[in-house]
Amino acid sequence: MFSYRFTLSYDGTKYNGWQKQGNTDNTIQGKLENMFSRLLEEEIEVHGAGRTDAGVHALGQVIHIHCKNDLLEDKSFNECITLINGYLPVDIRITSMEKCDLRFHARLNAMAKTYRYTIDTSLAGNVFNRNYVYHLPEKLNIEAMKGAAAYFLGEHDFKSFTSNKKMKKSSVRTIYSIDIETKSQGIIEINYRGNGFLYNMVRIITGTLIEIGQGKRRPESIPEILAGLNRELAGPMAPAAGLTMIEVEY
Amino acid sequence: MFSYRFTLSYDGTKYNGWQKQGNTDNTIQGKLENMFSRLLEEEIEVHGAGRTDAGVHALGQVIHIHCKNDLLEDKSFNECITLINGYLPVDIRITSMEKCDLRFHARLNAMAKTYRYTIDTSLAGNVFNRNYVYHLPEKLNIEAMKGAAAYFLGEHDFKSFTSNKKMKKSSVRTIYSIDIETKSQGIIEINYRGNGFLYNMVRIITGTLIEIGQGKRRPESIPEILAGLNRELAGPMAPAAGLTMIEVEY
Repeated sequence: MFSYRFTLSYDGTKYNGWQKQGNTDNTIQGKLENMFSRLLEEEIEVHGAGRTDAGVHALGQVIHIHCKNDLLEDKSFNECITLINGYLPVDIRITSMEKCDLRFHARLNAMAKTYRYTIDTSLAGNVFNRNYVYHLPEKLNIEAMKGAAAYFLGEHDFKSFTSNKKMKKSSVRTIYSIDIETKSQGIIEINYRGNGFLYNMVRIITGTLIEIGQGKRRPESIPEILAGLNRELAGPMAPAAGLTMIEVEY
Repeated sequence: MFSYRFTLSYDGTKYNGWQKQGNTDNTIQGKLENMFSRLLEEEIEVHGAGRTDAGVHALGQVIHIHCKNDLLEDKSFNECITLINGYLPVDIRITSMEKCDLRFHARLNAMAKTYRYTIDTSLAGNVFNRNYVYHLPEKLNIEAMKGAAAYFLGEHDFKSFTSNKKMKKSSVRTIYSIDIETKSQGIIEINYRGNGFLYNMVRIITGTLIEIGQGKRRPESIPEILAGLNRELAGPMAPAAGLTMIEVEY
């Protein structure tokens, strides 16, 4: 039995998210399992570090697979990556691979994940990044957003910031950092690093931060929203297109 | 009569280039004329600074129009830009506009144009810029390419570097600069600034520079190719997707 670990990027625009939905689905996991199964001539299960929503992108998603047949055989890693990418749609690319311990698990062993939410506040938007940002041509109060972001740091029950109403497991997570940076041409990047994120959590925190940037809410309202453990207290969910899974740390 | 000048960006991936081809065409000029004619309720002709090929992009194309009805009326420039963009496909965006002299002509008054050709030499490519680069996962000799680029500077007859075989007008042009820069993640940008470029000229020069980077030609061969005034002496035409019209100077 062999075990391989891969890093991959994808443009999630055309997909129904990460998680496989059946045999004729249009998901990233489905496309990957299909490709590996054809390539290796055995049924392959793909385990991803995180389940991205429909329309969400990845720069550094991590996956692992177990296989009976050796994927590498006489090939180098680079030859193998080129071969795999030849079998994948152009909007999904394997960027690196390595052999790994059979006990490595892409999701269970993840220590930290970084997600980036990108807002384009320019008047006209940018044709070249239009599928990877949320175009919101407004002036946002960045200092207020930074003030609000500080309240999310550390360990909290994020029940108010998830769409999953019937959570059986714990909704406690730890956010290590939220960095809000203003870039050229009206771009605002919000980088979230934490030990894990609940369903839609990054998008709901972002939607709430945006309302604070618009002056619709005060930064000081965040502790109350967290304490309320009620989704209705938080802001709207920001659009999927602006979100990208950047990195997974082990 | 009013006269307006606009700067615009477009993702040329889905279009048959700049130049209008009929009433039911799929060109940038066609889309713009259609939009302005609907908006102003009069027939509008759009004059662009440069005619980009099918699949070529623009960051800073410049156009002008003449109109009997005032496009602005009581609107601010920003309101007008937002209105216009609402009528345009998402892959074409007006980024700025101004009232101009009736004698201003976007093409005839252009003093210099800058085009950028982007090559992605990384093994796997990048899903996020895949439509805006030429993915060529090879190691290129940048110093040789820079040496070759120097031979193109100044005024030359570029007949060897155009696909237009039956040129009636002069094929003499002046290139002010060719800057070749290596960026992160295997990206190579070639920036061309000149007083004008012939049909396919940037793509054929780029294809020739790439062959020099691959070691298939010597940098010293450029003067002979220029002197030969024969398209067959130059290298292949680099793919359209990697080319972007960056700026027009007046």
